[in-house]
Amino acid sequence: MELNGVIIEDEYAEAFPNWSCRVIITAINEKWAYQAATEATGFATSAIGCPCEAGIEMFLSSEETPDGRPGVAVLFFAGGKKKLKEQVVERLAECVLTQPTTAVFDGMPDAEERIDVKLHFFGDGFEYKKEIGGRSCWAIPIMNGEYVGEENFGIVKGIAGGNFFIMGESQPCALMAAEAAIEAIYEVPGCMCSFPVVASGSKVGSNKYKFMPATTNEKYCPSIRDKVEETKVPEGVQAVYEIVIDGVDEEAIKESTRAGIVAASKIPGIKLITAGNFGGNLGPYKFNLHEIL
Amino acid sequence: MELNGVIIEDEYAEAFPNWSCRVIITAINEKWAYQAATEATGFATSAIGCPCEAGIEMFLSSEETPDGRPGVAVLFFAGGKKKLKEQVVERLAECVLTQPTTAVFDGMPDAEERIDVKLHFFGDGFEYKKEIGGRSCWAIPIMNGEYVGEENFGIVKGIAGGNFFIMGESQPCALMAAEAAIEAIYEVPGCMCSFPVVASGSKVGSNKYKFMPATTNEKYCPSIRDKVEETKVPEGVQAVYEIVIDGVDEEAIKESTRAGIVAASKIPGIKLITAGNFGGNLGPYKFNLHEIL
Amino acid sequence: MELNGVIIEDEYAEAFPNWSCRVIITAINEKWAYQAATEATGFATSAIGCPCEAGIEMFLSSEETPDGRPGVAVLFFAGGKKKLKEQVVERLAECVLTQPTTAVFDGMPDAEERIDVKLHFFGDGFEYKKEIGGRSCWAIPIMNGEYVGEENFGIVKGIAGGNFFIMGESQPCALMAAEAAIEAIYEVPGCMCSFPVVASGSKVGSNKYKFMPATTNEKYCPSIRDKVEETKVPEGVQAVYEIVIDGVDEEAIKESTRAGIVAASKIPGIKLITAGNFGGNLGPYKFNLHEIL
Amino acid sequence: MELNGVIIEDEYAEAFPNWSCRVIITAINEKWAYQAATEATGFATSAIGCPCEAGIEMFLSSEETPDGRPGVAVLFFAGGKKKLKEQVVERLAECVLTQPTTAVFDGMPDAEERIDVKLHFFGDGFEYKKEIGGRSCWAIPIMNGEYVGEENFGIVKGIAGGNFFIMGESQPCALMAAEAAIEAIYEVPGCMCSFPVVASGSKVGSNKYKFMPATTNEKYCPSIRDKVEETKVPEGVQAVYEIVIDGVDEEAIKESTRAGIVAASKIPGIKLITAGNFGGNLGPYKFNLHEIL
Repeated sequence: MELNGVIIEDEYAEAFPNWSCRVIITAINEKWAYQAATEATGFATSAIGCPCEAGIEMFLSSEETPDGRPGVAVLFFAGGKKKLKEQVVERLAECVLTQPTTAVFDGMPDAEERIDVKLHFFGDGFEYKKEIGGRSCWAIPIMNGEYVGEENFGIVKGIAGGNFFIMGESQPCALMAAEAAIEAIYEVPGCMCSFPVVASGSKVGSNKYKFMPATTNEKYCPSIRDKVEETKVPEGVQAVYEIVIDGVDEEAIKESTRAGIVAASKIPGIKLITAGNFGGNLGPYKFNLHEIL
Repeated sequence: MELNGVIIEDEYAEAFPNWSCRVIITAINEKWAYQAATEATGFATSAIGCPCEAGIEMFLSSEETPDGRPGVAVLFFAGGKKKLKEQVVERLAECVLTQPTTAVFDGMPDAEERIDVKLHFFGDGFEYKKEIGGRSCWAIPIMNGEYVGEENFGIVKGIAGGNFFIMGESQPCALMAAEAAIEAIYEVPGCMCSFPVVASGSKVGSNKYKFMPATTNEKYCPSIRDKVEETKVPEGVQAVYEIVIDGVDEEAIKESTRAGIVAASKIPGIKLITAGNFGGNLGPYKFNLHEIL
Repeated sequence: MELNGVIIEDEYAEAFPNWSCRVIITAINEKWAYQAATEATGFATSAIGCPCEAGIEMFLSSEETPDGRPGVAVLFFAGGKKKLKEQVVERLAECVLTQPTTAVFDGMPDAEERIDVKLHFFGDGFEYKKEIGGRSCWAIPIMNGEYVGEENFGIVKGIAGGNFFIMGESQPCALMAAEAAIEAIYEVPGCMCSFPVVASGSKVGSNKYKFMPATTNEKYCPSIRDKVEETKVPEGVQAVYEIVIDGVDEEAIKESTRAGIVAASKIPGIKLITAGNFGGNLGPYKFNLHEIL
Repeated sequence: MELNGVIIEDEYAEAFPNWSCRVIITAINEKWAYQAATEATGFATSAIGCPCEAGIEMFLSSEETPDGRPGVAVLFFAGGKKKLKEQVVERLAECVLTQPTTAVFDGMPDAEERIDVKLHFFGDGFEYKKEIGGRSCWAIPIMNGEYVGEENFGIVKGIAGGNFFIMGESQPCALMAAEAAIEAIYEVPGCMCSFPVVASGSKVGSNKYKFMPATTNEKYCPSIRDKVEETKVPEGVQAVYEIVIDGVDEEAIKESTRAGIVAASKIPGIKLITAGNFGGNLGPYKFNLHEIL
């Protein structure tokens, strides 16, 4: 099929279950909520080499947060509950509590599965319970006043690895299309792009270096298109970007995939959009592009 | 002494040796160089709970980088050489190589001690050597073209834990002073603030919870000033921020401490600026505020 | 009354009728829509010395604009219809049509009163009619492709001069409160703050310089509080900011006044919030703070 | 000649004398200095339809300004001294003095020709003289404290209309190259790009509408390339951007032209870079691209 003149391949993204946790970070202004969110979700592009996957889901106005201050919602993903809890604890302790004027709130109050994130012992006995916007929090005296936070967070079985590939006739075209995609995905609740744009695709293992667990996926590399027999790069494509999406449910992945592809297809110079899978035997979730659009 | 009406205490910051590595990240524009730098230096506020300490040193114009593109210089710090190398490898592999249009270059070409950061095996045999701006690099075919990078980086014995404390009559005053300080420190080469502003100070251990390795330093907490006998918070101070600085040498710590304090002192509502130490027995470096100013 | 510990005076803002026009500017991405909007609404703080009053109303996602691209809605205000039309024509011609990838759409399609903004003669005969998202537009060939725009815009009798004053114990407190106010007002549709924060208040005429049409309103100047008999600056206040709001109707002024005051009142160090009027004889609109809150 | 694979035509930019004034705006932080500078230089793309041409020259660190605060240098250009003075007065009065925490300083202290910008009458007798960083200023009590400013500014005979054209195989390529050019030009002192990127070129008069003083320059329009006999758009070019540069002297125009072209030529997909002139009979300045590079 075609969308705004761009070929959309009849392919599907193959994705995997992953535990997910949403944290609402507020601060005296958007700038500092964003700063804490950025620090807390850094070094978290891919669970392959990073301790977890994390990213900003959306900005929240002061009318949308428990304490009536500007906020940012962030999402953390990990394969196991234990790893997820460990990372949420470490990242809130080191990268949010330490930041100016922050507070944190549970972003999944209706979730049945829950994890404890007990930071209040840091108060060394000076901490106390405090209700904020109907939430039961701990207030911990720190240098710039009080850090306030909930300590019990809902988690849900979400999905990691939703994806689509944007193939453009040049690097600027493909890059502006990828930017348009992630700008559109920011508007969709329940998901985030941890990279946010992926410039290098991997295959499992290596043909040449047996000690490497993963190497470049030569089939998607335009610069060596002529040397690779089964290249997936069409003629005239000079740059490919992948958008990888983690979401709290199937609906979030579908809607963000749709919004991202529509936005990308409007940028001049995009030739083809497709999705990535492993033949369908590995991941239980399949997101077919034609069905979604 | 007084500076712009602010009392500067006759105190010193006590700091520690730390191995340090500078990486120059370039991209098609400043936005994407900054994006890669931010991702690569996230989850790196403090070596206590994060894998390393890292931050942005400065922006580089296209005339200042080996490949003539806009760039960002980042600094990584760790206690040991092995840990430093491991973190630089992981963060460049996961958070820079994967980002759109990036290239990386050694930021300490004159350093004698060096580490290898061998990413070119990712090319699975399609990689090749390429000289860029006089630098010997590897070019690795990836989806958006080629990732280009040096693979040998200088490291030096730098310093972690330079610091000063800003005490203000209110949270907005102290926060704007802290912002002014870090804005000024951005202009000083050879250093970075990993947090960048610290809102919560720690003491070693705990009086109440024996299982805690570190807890809030109640002496610096304005909200419990009346309950703490040996409080270091002067009357009328409602917020304290610490600026922690890691630098490649003593000169960088001195100059950034000076520039940061001067900038902070110009913001209305700042009462006192001091520095933090452990009595002088732990860290070999001492930075006396009066001497520096 | 008190709000979050801040005294809210029982005062009202006195405001005036003004013709108003909303233009939706879209572009290839948010950055360039914002750039065009900023240029088009510059030099437009106050109708006293500027050709008109103008500002950004809100950002629009790609799902909210006629052409499915990211957009910015801007509002223009002027006392007379002729002046309003002249300014919209000039500013769209010089500051939007000339900017990369822009398109413009009528932001008040239901308004009965309308103005023509005929830019298509610029096409010198190469222009042609084109329908975009159900809107009848002109497409004009330009250097970067085609500029697309509607040429008939709704206007309504709006209101200029909604206002409130934030009085803080220090400049940083008052400034962060003013920032919080305008951040909150951005969320309210139908209004904009042209300054956006006013640091200098005026009175009509002068006591000393008879040739001056307006001079500083000494009653609101903290630094000369002791020299002015009828000062309106309470003791302990060192900085005052005014938020001036132009809106398309009374509801927009009321809602933005409410949202702005609530947000400002949450910043530490704010003593008093009040409103400005001329005794009630000049402006037909009165916005009483207590009634609004 | 070729530069990074891009054809550079042997053409020259034809430019004109223009009076120029530099104003240094400082504030409590870079954000507010930039806000004032943006407002003061808005609605100032082209002297054809705007009251003057204006733009940001560069950011200044706190070590580079008279009052030791962060600053922004802005440049104003107008054909006549009287018009220049009128615009500087209006824009400083309405868009800088009214903004939070601002101060202004003469940015051309060595210039022989000078204009008065007497804002101190606004103080209505409460104003007083004050020396800041060796500059003789007026301090005017306003709501957020004191506005401080010099009132005598150097002006020089500068140059308006330096230019070059970037022609790309697609809109994203040309746009990213234009962005790269203006990013590089920001590094060059003594000049600014008022648009900053021009998407629509004009010719004098009209072939079809005799009442129009200027219309689209069809020779530079890719979308009607096939209909225009003497098109200057090469085959395969889909988007053209012009960078227009105003500078304080010939050196600034030359250096910014060079830096901008070098940066633009590095973006993939750029086919040709040229310059615009009127045959050489109108403007006394000629900037030949080959000579400059």
